[in-house]
Amino acid sequence: MKIQRYKRNNDYSYALGMTLTIELLKTKPQYVELVYISQRIEENENYRYLKKLCLENSIAIEKSEKAFNILSPKGNCFVIGVFRKFDTQLDSDNHIVLVNPSDTGNMGTIIRTAIGFNITNLAIVSPAVDIFDPKVVRASMGALFHINFKYYEDFSCYEAEFSSHSKYPFMLKASTPIQNVNFAKPFALVFGNEATGLPDSFSELHDSVPVVIPHSDNIDSLNLPMATGIAMFSATKDNWG
Amino acid sequence: MKIQRYKRNNDYSYALGMTLTIELLKTKPQYVELVYISQRIEENENYRYLKKLCLENSIAIEKSEKAFNILSPKGNCFVIGVFRKFDTQLDSDNHIVLVNPSDTGNMGTIIRTAIGFNITNLAIVSPAVDIFDPKVVRASMGALFHINFKYYEDFSCYEAEFSSHSKYPFMLKASTPIQNVNFAKPFALVFGNEATGLPDSFSELHDSVPVVIPHSDNIDSLNLPMATGIAMFSATKDNWG
Repeated sequence: MKIQRYKRNNDYSYALGMTLTIELLKTKPQYVELVYISQRIEENENYRYLKKLCLENSIAIEKSEKAFNILSPKGNCFVIGVFRKFDTQLDSDNHIVLVNPSDTGNMGTIIRTAIGFNITNLAIVSPAVDIFDPKVVRASMGALFHINFKYYEDFSCYEAEFSSHSKYPFMLKASTPIQNVNFAKPFALVFGNEATGLPDSFSELHDSVPVVIPHSDNIDSLNLPMATGIAMFSATKDNWG
Repeated sequence: MKIQRYKRNNDYSYALGMTLTIELLKTKPQYVELVYISQRIEENENYRYLKKLCLENSIAIEKSEKAFNILSPKGNCFVIGVFRKFDTQLDSDNHIVLVNPSDTGNMGTIIRTAIGFNITNLAIVSPAVDIFDPKVVRASMGALFHINFKYYEDFSCYEAEFSSHSKYPFMLKASTPIQNVNFAKPFALVFGNEATGLPDSFSELHDSVPVVIPHSDNIDSLNLPMATGIAMFSATKDNWG
């Protein structure tokens, strides 16, 4: 296959690195097209495990320095898993909803945290960052392969599909502090763009409680992954411990 | 003064960007040596405010494209605040303690979140990332100028100085989930390195309760800023709302 730098309209994406590629092979082997390895790879336990997973799933391993020059020019990566993009469906369990997220690293961190708190559904309202961008895959540390996700043109499309979810839009202007919220399940935790937050209209959503995470005046806001993480922890903490 | 790329042993560091430099001028004007501006700067409200702050504090503004070429080669920065590094002391209020933190972006994010939750003391156990690295300054979004910090050679030095703080080491191996902890003030929330966490010995600290933030098996761990953020939120949430 032709090796090319990742673009959003590609049918393929890439898992850059050993740990990530192993996670890909364990969770989504049916989508893996092949695995590139560098001549600099070391014969160790992880590599033997990688070879075993590839063998079991009839996936070819190919040596190609060119692949690494194109896909990981910085050079501390010796394994690349090439996989076909896949579709998933949201289920009726708890959701997180990101409206217009714009940062690949943030998206990956949020997915990793969501999987950490057993929130396995992510709705994304466009325009938004591409969930298959290798930077998202990498920042998620493989959690991307565990999440159900779906893109929506508009929040109203999401709302129509999941009308019975309790919506909790997180807004600096909200009057209910997160400490006072009893999250009703199934819930949808809704967050806006990194720079602009949610539009004011979200304070008047049907069946919703706008929530604020109170913080001091010495910062403008928590960063987006932090706000989502604190919200997901708060909404699920009674399931643990 | 000679413009040179930031190094740890420099006496100076840099606030890269308009918002950051304004925060520097508002909070630590006594340490500001001068402000560089690019010829590409726009005459707008922020720039007028910057000039006012510099005038009030007798700080020179200098045009220098060379400064931007050296200090911000990526080029979307038109203001640089040059400041002398400063010392601070920890007070007896709540603390966060980072043992061997290694990532500049994480350090900045943790400082921003700490200031958000009114935790204004940060102890850092060496070896550790340099808090004055411009990447930390930038990731903190200026919160660095609001925090008290101090480096310690060893955790035991910190412990000797603040023996009456209740210590909460965060460890994956701990048996007490964070949901069950009533944080006694003043507290010290203690976190290990990004890759390795805290050494096992921290589970037997004097006057301490090792704490775990429970998460699913589908991730190895929460990332460090996320874990610190959830801990700081949990430990301070009764102060709000």
